[in-house]
Amino acid sequence: MKEHETKIKVRYVETDRMGIVHHSNYFAWFEVGRTEFIKEQGMRYKDMENAGVLLPLIECGCEFKAGAKYEDELVIKTSINSLSPVKVEFKYEVLREHDRNFLANGFTRHAFVNKEFKPINLQKKYPEVWSIMNK
Amino acid sequence: MKEHETKIKVRYVETDRMGIVHHSNYFAWFEVGRTEFIKEQGMRYKDMENAGVLLPLIECGCEFKAGAKYEDELVIKTSINSLSPVKVEFKYEVLREHDRNFLANGFTRHAFVNKEFKPINLQKKYPEVWSIMNK
Amino acid sequence: MKEHETKIKVRYVETDRMGIVHHSNYFAWFEVGRTEFIKEQGMRYKDMENAGVLLPLIECGCEFKAGAKYEDELVIKTSINSLSPVKVEFKYEVLREHDRNFLANGFTRHAFVNKEFKPINLQKKYPEVWSIMNK
Amino acid sequence: MKEHETKIKVRYVETDRMGIVHHSNYFAWFEVGRTEFIKEQGMRYKDMENAGVLLPLIECGCEFKAGAKYEDELVIKTSINSLSPVKVEFKYEVLREHDRNFLANGFTRHAFVNKEFKPINLQKKYPEVWSIMNK
Repeated sequence: MKEHETKIKVRYVETDRMGIVHHSNYFAWFEVGRTEFIKEQGMRYKDMENAGVLLPLIECGCEFKAGAKYEDELVIKTSINSLSPVKVEFKYEVLREHDRNFLANGFTRHAFVNKEFKPINLQKKYPEVWSIMNK
Repeated sequence: MKEHETKIKVRYVETDRMGIVHHSNYFAWFEVGRTEFIKEQGMRYKDMENAGVLLPLIECGCEFKAGAKYEDELVIKTSINSLSPVKVEFKYEVLREHDRNFLANGFTRHAFVNKEFKPINLQKKYPEVWSIMNK
Repeated sequence: MKEHETKIKVRYVETDRMGIVHHSNYFAWFEVGRTEFIKEQGMRYKDMENAGVLLPLIECGCEFKAGAKYEDELVIKTSINSLSPVKVEFKYEVLREHDRNFLANGFTRHAFVNKEFKPINLQKKYPEVWSIMNK
Repeated sequence: MKEHETKIKVRYVETDRMGIVHHSNYFAWFEVGRTEFIKEQGMRYKDMENAGVLLPLIECGCEFKAGAKYEDELVIKTSINSLSPVKVEFKYEVLREHDRNFLANGFTRHAFVNKEFKPINLQKKYPEVWSIMNK
């Protein structure tokens, strides 16, 4: 299975008064991983959107093992968990780079929809995007 | 079971280029719901933190049924799903206020830890907080 | 001069590891104040956008006197500093509600543009919006 | 004058319904530039904080010339505008990398304070930090 590694450095704004990264930011990082993953398949997420394919989330989740801290250098590992003509699930792992300590793992499940948010069959409607996702 | 309703108005900054609210914000709203829920039990979240009880997330998840939009007035319903001396799980429902349309539901699971992020037994360590949570 | 007061309660996610609100959130609050201010004139910001008038920022600034903290209840005072057919400047004051302690003041300057981000003359193009802004 | 260049790739979460980056994110990017700038002087921002020197903002501002878009690769140029024993002002420029198009410029002014947010004289209190800032 294809897996993409993206590097992230924790930003100050991402921390909260507990001194660790606020959990909501992991979903923004997953998104960065997803963007890079898709780019590596030879397609830009924004081109996909401009072509009329949107990927709104239908579900997401994350388990946290240890808190990330300001200035931590992290690795986001992104891969596709499952893919059908109407939806896709990505999975993610977050590690601290210097000691490969495992911090979190999560997933995002997306529907394929058009600009009116109507479900589309990606395989039929955009066979070229479908084949890239299937690579 | 106790349930608390909090009102939220969608902010411009919470939207993304898809024209709907970015999913990461739901977790910030859940947090607002959680804060209000706890306050209603007669305790402020920050006082709990100042007393030495932190509630970092160990897991969270959300299912999205429809996208929230800028200026939408929403209701966040918060309740406790399960509670033990070492962790608590909150559940949330997000509705659009004017038509009670169901937008999303989610959960957050938290450990009770001290300021050094060591697990604590809330019932033994802070019986008064424990009894408030159990109300 | 018209002035609108909006209430805000500081969210956990808005704090950072310094224990106070991260400065970037003041601009999100100013936006809430602006939205409410415009609504009070009898117009919704999103209707303005849907009608084809966008208000991207051309400049903004903020002075901070004291840090806002988690669960603080704040008042955002919003008013129009200056208005011309091609731009508008809003000003804002942030106070802590319970002691009226002054926390920050800022401004945002906006151009009137169409959906292609071309400058428009609001007075000529949308006289009804112009007259509402001038109220 | 020393100047540091940091690269940023625009995240999806940073865009808003106007289709461009929400202005509040520029201040988060400035912070990334500042962190990198300080690191290049041989000091980590978090070590400075751990040593007891906090740099809360007392003022900030930004002028926007053109909107940044999702997946844009940007350059943040950071330098020190002025420095005294009690405060420091950083300035920033944001350019789109591929065409060096100028998008925005801004500044942040910070006080040197201790963990109780009391002003400190950096030169007297932390001569080693002061000398690094003066490099």
